[in-house]
Amino acid sequence: MEKTKKYILSENQIPEQWYNIQADMPNAMLPPLHPGTKQPIGPADLAPLFPMELIKQEVSKERWIDIPEEVRDVYKLWRPSPLFRATNFEKLLDTPAKIYYKYEGVSPAGSHKPNTAVPQAYYNKMEGVKKIATETGAGQWGSALSFACNHFGIDLEVYMVKVSYEQKPYRKFMMNTWGANVYSSPTNRTESGRKVLADDPNSPGSLGIAISEAVERAATSTDTKYSLGSVLNHVLMHQTVIGLESIKQMELAGDFPDIVIGCFGGGSNFAGISFPFLGLNFREGKKVRCIAAEPSSCPKLTKGEFRYDFGDTVGLTPLIPMYTLGHTFMPAPIHAGGLRYHGAGAIVSQLLKDKLIEAQSFHQIECFDAGVKFARSEGIIPAPESNHAIACAVKEALKAKAEGTPKTILFNLSGHGNFDMSAYDAYFSGKLVEHHLTEQELHADLEMLETPVIA
Amino acid sequence: MEKTKKYILSENQIPEQWYNIQADMPNAMLPPLHPGTKQPIGPADLAPLFPMELIKQEVSKERWIDIPEEVRDVYKLWRPSPLFRATNFEKLLDTPAKIYYKYEGVSPAGSHKPNTAVPQAYYNKMEGVKKIATETGAGQWGSALSFACNHFGIDLEVYMVKVSYEQKPYRKFMMNTWGANVYSSPTNRTESGRKVLADDPNSPGSLGIAISEAVERAATSTDTKYSLGSVLNHVLMHQTVIGLESIKQMELAGDFPDIVIGCFGGGSNFAGISFPFLGLNFREGKKVRCIAAEPSSCPKLTKGEFRYDFGDTVGLTPLIPMYTLGHTFMPAPIHAGGLRYHGAGAIVSQLLKDKLIEAQSFHQIECFDAGVKFARSEGIIPAPESNHAIACAVKEALKAKAEGTPKTILFNLSGHGNFDMSAYDAYFSGKLVEHHLTEQELHADLEMLETPVIA
Repeated sequence: MEKTKKYILSENQIPEQWYNIQADMPNAMLPPLHPGTKQPIGPADLAPLFPMELIKQEVSKERWIDIPEEVRDVYKLWRPSPLFRATNFEKLLDTPAKIYYKYEGVSPAGSHKPNTAVPQAYYNKMEGVKKIATETGAGQWGSALSFACNHFGIDLEVYMVKVSYEQKPYRKFMMNTWGANVYSSPTNRTESGRKVLADDPNSPGSLGIAISEAVERAATSTDTKYSLGSVLNHVLMHQTVIGLESIKQMELAGDFPDIVIGCFGGGSNFAGISFPFLGLNFREGKKVRCIAAEPSSCPKLTKGEFRYDFGDTVGLTPLIPMYTLGHTFMPAPIHAGGLRYHGAGAIVSQLLKDKLIEAQSFHQIECFDAGVKFARSEGIIPAPESNHAIACAVKEALKAKAEGTPKTILFNLSGHGNFDMSAYDAYFSGKLVEHHLTEQELHADLEMLETPVIA
Repeated sequence: MEKTKKYILSENQIPEQWYNIQADMPNAMLPPLHPGTKQPIGPADLAPLFPMELIKQEVSKERWIDIPEEVRDVYKLWRPSPLFRATNFEKLLDTPAKIYYKYEGVSPAGSHKPNTAVPQAYYNKMEGVKKIATETGAGQWGSALSFACNHFGIDLEVYMVKVSYEQKPYRKFMMNTWGANVYSSPTNRTESGRKVLADDPNSPGSLGIAISEAVERAATSTDTKYSLGSVLNHVLMHQTVIGLESIKQMELAGDFPDIVIGCFGGGSNFAGISFPFLGLNFREGKKVRCIAAEPSSCPKLTKGEFRYDFGDTVGLTPLIPMYTLGHTFMPAPIHAGGLRYHGAGAIVSQLLKDKLIEAQSFHQIECFDAGVKFARSEGIIPAPESNHAIACAVKEALKAKAEGTPKTILFNLSGHGNFDMSAYDAYFSGKLVEHHLTEQELHADLEMLETPVIA
């Protein structure tokens, strides 16, 4: 076996500021629009949902935003996270490429999500918020926010997609352990939920529906705010601690990546690893290729349309300029639950539109092929979401081999697979289903959209 | 919230030697006996089961044993593990005691078990062994050895207790992911298994039966060795990396423990944290109290008998001088599967006999009470086994408060609870059952023993 190559930073090297890519993007994004008036929204429109400090961050053009000491202090529980060179994986692939990975599964919730859950809970706490409502799919985000809200003493309601609530209860118990109340969505607690249940009492739920429920709770209660685990600008910015640490760790390794890869759901873990490197592209003329790896069954970046769309199913959120499959698109039940979302955040969408980043899609089985190879060579069992980044790294490493050009690849191993072992069982027992979208399925939801098209 | 206090070591501070307490124990242990002849066994008797290097370690009186570079290199994947001061937990308990914990859940398998799985796989590899057989209860040990055997390219057969195999399949899938073959024990693959099945075709299995099966496989195959995850001297010694690192980390904290606590199944994690401190007691006159925390439903240390007994149910292993409940004792189905074992290792038993360590027992519900308090104050959800150490820390911290004597307490958080969330669900929904042993149940198995009594 090859030697373990691990690059660790000391605690005082936890970043002191987040990187805000809005300061450096060549083209600014289009503004979000009010869902009713279709006019650009301002901070006041978001005030019912978010504390003012997060709204400021959402629209800030400052390049660096200070990370509060109280947040860095909680980060210390697991940060700085380690960066490894995957020497045994390289050997297995017989590639001239060097492959590095940043490992975010070391957090208490087991993924990168606490990087933003902690500051979101903190800013709510500072502004006197007593209660937060949120949604979760398979539970990564819900458990991360439960951890964070528990830490700062904030009550939390989680609307968990019914099919996950019933089939994958372990993350629900994790949220309970951290004191959160978890509801199977759609519920009878909200107008949005009741509407869905009236149409279909057996609705399996979806992330879009759960978002509608949580947003409605916040919008209609004076004591409750809303929190989102991806898509929004401030959320993506909080994740840049991943890439900022990685830059220092690649320096320790005496190396620099040609290619940076993150899996893609709404954009938070991709942004986390790639935005700081894109910043170097913008400011220092580096040429890092940043690749978002999404599932073939939910291909908003590679097959979606760039236009205004809602963030939720019912249509309560602002309209966001995004690559989307349509807010009513119902993704196939792949095991990478965190990637089953119809749209991409505004920043990532603008960057893709401007060809400053790339996107690739991967089928479920090739992702598990790659994930199992990785587990057997590097010893860590990845989350199904992260397997998409690994599949992309494999593809690029084999391309480097075919072309005889040694490349340096860095990917984000966004979480461990401890709560996803039934997916691995399905893979080993040949029960993993491949979901092939027809052109008709791809366009059906987009054709129904009545939201503004971007010229 | 209080500030996070984490004490981390650099990679070159991973210990270079294990600590062998046999060099310093005031009274040597009695010898293990051959199961047939009842005469002391020598290295040749163990040769069918273990590689010679491990047999040498088993009987060595050398104080320090070098850790091979190849083993330290794999340790680097997660070691040195962090040590925290549990400041928020202290505040919650309103105690003048200072509570520290060493966190071993950061390993790929999620517990302290890889500390010995890796060197065991390594020494087998060095001596040309192609295949290993082992047993596992809930799966902590089986997954750790799967990880290690996969790393060194050794085939692994795991005999997993049937009731866990069926009710807790996720660790089985984890073992499969690392390439191990896992069998539901009792099986038809061994004489021992067939014997049990003949008596009871629906036997739920037990750790003792699974050990019989694995030992038999190794004893009757020329190409297969056996590996055990606790109890034996060399296994306990490999775990001393935990305590050796802790001593350095307590120095970083400018502190030193009055009390050191580990939960207790066969002894490996208790030994890992406590033996290096006991060494300081023996050599430097320190007065650290070392407490083993065991379940009330399987109380070999607090209610067992010190005598010779088998390590397995069928009676294939050497006779070990141990505190035991009788090798046919069937522990209640508590959620801390790793603590459901009838006996204690020989070293720990001798130390307890000589009153050099202490033992306390805890009921299941008070352990989960403590574990949930810990999760809500410190952010990490513990394994049910580790909850016993936490319950003991709570007891000692509250005692310190009652007595008005500030104490410094260190416990080993031996693993995370990611695979045990159904146990937390049972706790929250009031379904957790308390198992109270009657005096009759406690003595029934001991009375049937025909093995030599120690005068």
